[in-house]
This record gives sequence, C-alpha cells and structure tokens, in this order.
Amino acid sequence: MHSLKWLAIFPFLFATAEQVSAQNESKQMVRLAKLVIDSAQLKQYNAFLKEEIETSLKVESGVLTLYAVAEKERPTHITILEIYADPEAYKKHIQTPHFLKYKNGTKAMVKSLELSEVEPLTPALKIKQSKPSN
Amino acid sequence: MHSLKWLAIFPFLFATAEQVSAQNESKQMVRLAKLVIDSAQLKQYNAFLKEEIETSLKVESGVLTLYAVAEKERPTHITILEIYADPEAYKKHIQTPHFLKYKNGTKAMVKSLELSEVEPLTPALKIKQSKPSN
Repeated sequence: MHSLKWLAIFPFLFATAEQVSAQNESKQMVRLAKLVIDSAQLKQYNAFLKEEIETSLKVESGVLTLYAVAEKERPTHITILEIYADPEAYKKHIQTPHFLKYKNGTKAMVKSLELSEVEPLTPALKIKQSKPSN
Repeated sequence: MHSLKWLAIFPFLFATAEQVSAQNESKQMVRLAKLVIDSAQLKQYNAFLKEEIETSLKVESGVLTLYAVAEKERPTHITILEIYADPEAYKKHIQTPHFLKYKNGTKAMVKSLELSEVEPLTPALKIKQSKPSN
C-alpha cells in the first residue's frame, strides 16, 4: 500500500523538477561582447582579460561561461560569449574587484565595444565551461 | 621494490597524458559564423538551423559545439560558435546530408555570412555542450 502511494506521487515530483529546470534556463542571461583592441596594446589587453575570466569562473558561481575568441586573421577582433545564471549574477559580476580591475585597466586599450543581449536558438543544448584548476 | 619502480614511472605517465591533452586541444578548430537573415524568412531559417544543429550534435562525434544565438534587439542577426574536434571533423561535417539540407535549404534566406576561424583565449577552459535527448 505504501509503495502505491509513492507511485502516485512520483509524476508530480518529476513535473516539478522539470518546471524548476525550465525556469532556471529561462532566467539565464546570455550576451555577446564584440571588441576591437588597439594592436599596440593587444598583449597587455589579453593578459587582463585572461585573468578576469579565470578569476570570475573560479570565484563566482553565477558566472557560467566566459568564452573569449580572437579572429586568426585579425587578432585585435575579439568576441566573448558570456552566460550568467540570472540577471542578478551579472549585476554582482560587474561590481567585483576583478571585473573592475579589468574594466579600468583596459579602458585605454579598447577601440570599440559592442554589447548585445542574445537568445540561444537551442536553450536545451546547454553549454558548460570547465573551471580553472588552482 | 615493485612499488618504488611504479613511483618512478608515474611522473612520465602524467607528463604524457598532459601532452596528449594539449595536442588534442590544439587540433580543435573553432569558428564564428555571423549571419544576417531575411526577416520575412527568419522563422523558416531558424527551423532549418535548429534541425541541423540537433542532428549534428547527435550523430557526429567530431562536432563538439554548435551554439547559435540571436540578438534580442535584431533577431535577424545570428552568431554561431562552432567547435570541431579537428579539421577532419569539420570537413566530414560539411559533407553530411543534414548539413547540405541546411545549406541548400537556407541559401535564399541568408542576406550575409561572415565566417572566421578563431583562437580561444583560454583553451584550457573548455566548453562542453549537452547532446540532444531523443
């Protein structure tokens, strides 16, 4: 009799887990940052960005992905895919000391910055980035 | 005595594993595709792309990531982050029936396409995309 009761409860448990997962996905904030960097300062810029990315992924649980790529033909053209757990995680991120160090340290190196909030086409096919090892 | 021998061998085992891992990473091919789609055909285009992405991730082990995003302000502006295990995996991919179906089916929908091979700034912080469930 007890086991039958549990069977009756199970579908509701699963439904709730799915709903929670769907809610969490829809709360994610995904952005693309497209930057052009002063070629004379590219090496310093990349060092700043690398440190900022590694620290963010290490210490901020709400920063899910910071994936930066540079064009092979034009290494000064950088694109960063940014995924935050929710808008609050993003707000926290831009107030951290490591983000402010990057932002202020690279101000004079960035020739242009284009930020756009984006929508993933296949939100169920989630991306997971590995964390830095110590 | 036996255990001491093993201890002496261990560092070489680890070194080799690291080297292999570094080689595998450097063989990866990462690309950004930036597209602008005809707004009158955006819905059809997105359906083609979604099917192509889901099929590729399901059946091609060498296709590691196909992450497509659309700008919220300009949904016709799409960026796709593409990661292949190596250049051979990419060559195979563009000959598959599902890729050709997408490519030929969307030809008249794509207003502009900019492809660039890119270099990840932090290659050790790898991205992993979940596979579609059946």
